[in-house]
Amino acid sequence: MNNINNDTICALATGGGISAIALIRISGRNTIDIVNKIFSKNLSNKETHTVHFGNIIDNKNIIDEVVITLFHKNQSYTGEETVEISCHGSKYIQNKILELLINNGVRMANSGEYTMRAFQNGKLDLSQAESVADLIKAESEAAHKTAIQHLRGGFSKKLKLLRQKLIDFASLIELELDFSEEDVEFADRTQLNKLLNELKTEISSLINSFKIGNVIKNGIPVAILGAPNVGKSTLLNTLLNEEKAIVSNIAGTTRDSIEDEIIINGYNFRFIDTAGIRKTDDTIENLGINRAISHAKNSSIIIYLLDASENIENQINNINNLSKKDQSKIIKVINKIDLSNKIKFIHNGCLHISAKKNIGIDELKNKIFDFTNINVLDNSNTIVTNQRHYEQLKKTLNELELVIEGLGNELSSDLLAINIKQSLFHLGLITGEVSTDDLLSNIFGKFCIGK
Amino acid sequence: MNNINNDTICALATGGGISAIALIRISGRNTIDIVNKIFSKNLSNKETHTVHFGNIIDNKNIIDEVVITLFHKNQSYTGEETVEISCHGSKYIQNKILELLINNGVRMANSGEYTMRAFQNGKLDLSQAESVADLIKAESEAAHKTAIQHLRGGFSKKLKLLRQKLIDFASLIELELDFSEEDVEFADRTQLNKLLNELKTEISSLINSFKIGNVIKNGIPVAILGAPNVGKSTLLNTLLNEEKAIVSNIAGTTRDSIEDEIIINGYNFRFIDTAGIRKTDDTIENLGINRAISHAKNSSIIIYLLDASENIENQINNINNLSKKDQSKIIKVINKIDLSNKIKFIHNGCLHISAKKNIGIDELKNKIFDFTNINVLDNSNTIVTNQRHYEQLKKTLNELELVIEGLGNELSSDLLAINIKQSLFHLGLITGEVSTDDLLSNIFGKFCIGK
Repeated sequence: MNNINNDTICALATGGGISAIALIRISGRNTIDIVNKIFSKNLSNKETHTVHFGNIIDNKNIIDEVVITLFHKNQSYTGEETVEISCHGSKYIQNKILELLINNGVRMANSGEYTMRAFQNGKLDLSQAESVADLIKAESEAAHKTAIQHLRGGFSKKLKLLRQKLIDFASLIELELDFSEEDVEFADRTQLNKLLNELKTEISSLINSFKIGNVIKNGIPVAILGAPNVGKSTLLNTLLNEEKAIVSNIAGTTRDSIEDEIIINGYNFRFIDTAGIRKTDDTIENLGINRAISHAKNSSIIIYLLDASENIENQINNINNLSKKDQSKIIKVINKIDLSNKIKFIHNGCLHISAKKNIGIDELKNKIFDFTNINVLDNSNTIVTNQRHYEQLKKTLNELELVIEGLGNELSSDLLAINIKQSLFHLGLITGEVSTDDLLSNIFGKFCIGK
Repeated sequence: MNNINNDTICALATGGGISAIALIRISGRNTIDIVNKIFSKNLSNKETHTVHFGNIIDNKNIIDEVVITLFHKNQSYTGEETVEISCHGSKYIQNKILELLINNGVRMANSGEYTMRAFQNGKLDLSQAESVADLIKAESEAAHKTAIQHLRGGFSKKLKLLRQKLIDFASLIELELDFSEEDVEFADRTQLNKLLNELKTEISSLINSFKIGNVIKNGIPVAILGAPNVGKSTLLNTLLNEEKAIVSNIAGTTRDSIEDEIIINGYNFRFIDTAGIRKTDDTIENLGINRAISHAKNSSIIIYLLDASENIENQINNINNLSKKDQSKIIKVINKIDLSNKIKFIHNGCLHISAKKNIGIDELKNKIFDFTNINVLDNSNTIVTNQRHYEQLKKTLNELELVIEGLGNELSSDLLAINIKQSLFHLGLITGEVSTDDLLSNIFGKFCIGK
């Protein structure tokens, strides 16, 4: 394989700051020769996938005792000669080693440049490469599962099949073009129509999967609605605290808290705070209601919280302000059932909880989860999670529909060929059979440095 | 070698949060067998220091594509069977792999437990093990250099020599003890005295080095003093900004900013803010002066800032409030020399700067550095940087002085032997020839998890 890039890049691949170990990755032309200049052992004749303990040396001064891992060309992540330096996680040492590498002709990698090189060297297709960033960002089991499916080529395989069908179709049409002066019709139009409709169905199903893919990736939006002091924030805190307690079981790995995201049964739910609503006078209240309604509109689920210790009439007014569609997303939950001597109503069709005393919270979580009606974890349907892929699929479908329409109108092969080529072009943009520098820098620019 | 620990530990060794790569380290009994249960390849017959690409699997689900590094017993950092899993740096994956390991009987490592095991298995002595934590924390070239010298056994070697001399001495005395009934005097008392004084000199020089070692490790304290509005904060910002600009040359590795620490020529200077001093009325001003005086007392260097555009008489009052000793630490610096049309005085013996316009700042930094009169980077004297070592050295010296005194008073060998044993005990506590569980948990408890 001939590597496209002529230079050598380096970056810190692990999280910044102080840690036990940090990893610096070097990839590209002459990597081993360059590392030989700063390492106490000669790595030139060492086998790939071997590990070497030694010192990083700067002008006779020992910078650190490190462990170096060697990957030969075509056997590394990037496909290039690669060295990973596992050093002590001091900021001084990390910077010093990077500085030494730079002084020896290596340059700092751009965001995502290792993965871009992996793509350029044919180790991954473009949609796989993009899933690497999703995999790193994934916080829930579902987001993780779809990302790793994409990384392992599940989506690519599906696209390859579609592409092959389109190419087969195109070649039939092209054949007609070659003989166009003779007005031959090689392709059976009924057969063509059938093939096109198959393609349309499959692409449509991928497009539709984005609705799920998008919420899996970005979290399923849930709005908590209800009158002031009904316990919305208490409920959110109770949900969050339980989650935090689970995560902190494993010491040293506590995630950065994203205050309003909660994982339920492996799915990420993004709770939307409507806490700003306060009853002061009518104008303000109306503003508040409008805001709640808009939150409700953008969410997949609405938890409508009612206070068991207050009269129900005063609490359900807002529901009527919601559209029919939004009303269908409501889970009614009666809170404060711990205030047993003050309870003014309960309701058989509702969940009864106490956010404060942590009563009924697990049932609520199950209810929320059942409501989503999503089950990605138990089946292996391909799900589109990437906005760019979604858009290209829509464009592909659009071109296909023009072909179907053209066939119906008995358009000539050369005109059909234009739309078929366009649909192939859009499909190719997803996997990277077709790509431009702009597209690549746009995609990989969103990666983190070191990947 | 028989490993002391019977269990298996795991931890994240790299920085938490999202990153390209994260490293999980497993060490101890049956490590390879345990990893085999969650890895797609069998590692049992693989050679040490080899690297294996494969999948981490949980109940047929692929959790991640990872690179695993294998270290056999006696050939790893801890001295135990060790596996390092290099996975994608997603928090979900990190937690999931740790969870899988824990479900297979591995437990989360305590802080510093890998290094403690390295010590327990004889891979490092105690003072070397302690330097690992210093190495990771080191932010300046000087702190880094002393830490790596200690890690590489420079200090241990020195202590070993001292210990050997003491043991030689003790054995002469012990010999006399064995034959004490015969009232023999094997050891030449003049010779003994000479040896003891040598030891005393060497230990004293180590004890004295702590004064430097401590400031290297914790930063050299510098107080900026001067009248209000003389430009103290501007100077500090100018010094800090220049530093930040240097650091940020290497993208992706920017250190967490510690607002008042600046590296000059490889040494860490800790600038002490006296910015709170404001001239309002006499009482407050006196409070301010007292505070400045106390800052001055605790610092190694005082930058006394004067405003070139104000009358000098009003500005030098504070100097007289300082003790003679503190006055000797002063570097007088005249600021605001950019206000050329307003200048009321300059002074040949002073540095002239403009903190605002960045004039004379490099000269000031050189002046500050020269003032320290420390030069660790150019020689390789052993420097004590650890408070615990310092205290044990003082106790060692104390016992030695008792021996010297006893020799002078012609004390009997058995009495001398008591103090010699005590001095050996204290020296042994530094390198770990003598150690207790409490001592170990105290030392390693200060480490980060994963080291």
